[in-house]
Amino acid sequence: MAKRIGLGIDYGGTKILAAVVDIDTGEVLGTSKKRSRAVDSSDELLRRLYDLGDAALRDAGVSPDALSGIGVGIAGQVDAERGILLDTPNLSQATVDLPLAAALTKHFGVPAALRNDVQIAASGELHFGAGKGISDFLCVFVGTGIGGAIVQNGQLVTGATATAGEIGHLVIQADGRLCGCGGRGHLEAYASRTAITRSLLGDLKRGRESILTELLPAPSEDAPGGTAIRSGILAKAVAADDPLVTETVIQAGHYLGLGMASAINLLNPTRIIMGGGVIEAVDRLFQVASTHARREALPVPGLGVQIVKAELGDNAGVIGAALIGAHSA
Amino acid sequence: MAKRIGLGIDYGGTKILAAVVDIDTGEVLGTSKKRSRAVDSSDELLRRLYDLGDAALRDAGVSPDALSGIGVGIAGQVDAERGILLDTPNLSQATVDLPLAAALTKHFGVPAALRNDVQIAASGELHFGAGKGISDFLCVFVGTGIGGAIVQNGQLVTGATATAGEIGHLVIQADGRLCGCGGRGHLEAYASRTAITRSLLGDLKRGRESILTELLPAPSEDAPGGTAIRSGILAKAVAADDPLVTETVIQAGHYLGLGMASAINLLNPTRIIMGGGVIEAVDRLFQVASTHARREALPVPGLGVQIVKAELGDNAGVIGAALIGAHSA
Repeated sequence: MAKRIGLGIDYGGTKILAAVVDIDTGEVLGTSKKRSRAVDSSDELLRRLYDLGDAALRDAGVSPDALSGIGVGIAGQVDAERGILLDTPNLSQATVDLPLAAALTKHFGVPAALRNDVQIAASGELHFGAGKGISDFLCVFVGTGIGGAIVQNGQLVTGATATAGEIGHLVIQADGRLCGCGGRGHLEAYASRTAITRSLLGDLKRGRESILTELLPAPSEDAPGGTAIRSGILAKAVAADDPLVTETVIQAGHYLGLGMASAINLLNPTRIIMGGGVIEAVDRLFQVASTHARREALPVPGLGVQIVKAELGDNAGVIGAALIGAHSA
Repeated sequence: MAKRIGLGIDYGGTKILAAVVDIDTGEVLGTSKKRSRAVDSSDELLRRLYDLGDAALRDAGVSPDALSGIGVGIAGQVDAERGILLDTPNLSQATVDLPLAAALTKHFGVPAALRNDVQIAASGELHFGAGKGISDFLCVFVGTGIGGAIVQNGQLVTGATATAGEIGHLVIQADGRLCGCGGRGHLEAYASRTAITRSLLGDLKRGRESILTELLPAPSEDAPGGTAIRSGILAKAVAADDPLVTETVIQAGHYLGLGMASAINLLNPTRIIMGGGVIEAVDRLFQVASTHARREALPVPGLGVQIVKAELGDNAGVIGAALIGAHSA
């Protein structure tokens, strides 16, 4: 029997990854990757998706005719049913109400599906990763933002308007810090890499000493304020027992634990799967968050929940996107 | 065809209500009611349930043999699968790990099922109330505590250990007020009748003027501190434009809105059904909470969600309990 092949694209806040995937085994047959940067227009965003997809197909030696479908996950709010990208506050202010699935179908000549970036990663973990065989779980991904996805009865819960799972926008501090979405006191404003970066850069400006002054690249025109401290640098600083970074990571872990405790109390999941760049790089954040989540949750659901790391790493999103794309065929 | 009849008991923080219910129509055939008070032992709790159930059967003129089953909802954490009452922080410290369903089956001679008090009310609203025909919704009940229940695909979501839906234990203020459950900053500590009472009595002690000093009964031996301000008294004070009570209700409504916004962001429900004694009596709380929830939620799920009041009032719990009990047969 011929292989069933999907093209998956994961458009995150830090990078864009495309992969050609055998959707029966989860095997990645070819990839392509780019750093993401804010785009000025919908055309620019689409061009990037076309280029990455074409490059992954070349890498795999697969022609577009061989695809069962294409799936895209993107850091933003999507209308999955109509394949429309509604809003991407973390990527661009310019791309609103973009009929992305239709554009991709036109370019690649196959059916296309659109989800948010965490929903595709959850789908990857569900079928080939830490969610395999678990019918009820919650994914929490910590990167540029904080995303989540809910799986119940082995199915992704998409909600009434396909935005379910936004754990990063749980209110954990009434009238608290301003969030990227415009809301106040949301978890994402306390425990995402963006929040950790903001807190650390502020402390450095106020004269706190840290190994970060050695580890951070000099500010460039590209990123004048040093807009994001990469997860690898956070990991190095924690490994070196840098007091400022360690303290900041522990604080972020406490907040993350509070958000997870809220989700445990509301959903009573069997398992929480934690992933994303910061969790993968900084084990301390995973440890603090999972310990604190259990401590703060109600006893019965808190003691019962399993908290584990995602297994597919960077590939979760592209594998899940390819699966969703192919099933939309 | 003979009527299918269930006995439902709703053991809440303020009162215990029992009803004999035609489970095909939702019609209540007979009832019995008592005020709840803290019980000193499991035996005392069981005796109250037996007495109420027996009285409702007498009121309906129905013999226990005619029952398909009995269902009990109770304000606490339950192990639904094994029919065990785990913990009831709002009712008693004495009743822990009580095999309630087995005891009821022994007394009434029919199968018995146990849920928490909000899950039974949600089941009632789902089949005969504001959730009829809606497959995905969230219930929020504001009374002595704040409870919630999630319905997805027309089914109550019970979670891994049957405690799903605890919206009252969402963290809305990191390191905030102490909650009855021992946690900190939970919604219930800010917007339940217990929290509203505590805030108002504190303000009265600090000399704030209010119509409450006329409306409240004199402290008695039974409730020396005036342990709960009844919803009807809150409603009267708001209707009289009492500044202290109005301000306190608005503040509670804001907090309630924040918790609902969290739940909207995480679950993206089609509808939220609000009920419970305080919501039923104090329309202002419903108005403020629903407006604030929409304002604080992410735009797409926030604008999409319908927020309505429960329709079955006090009977939601007993009807739902009877349904659950009869279906366990």
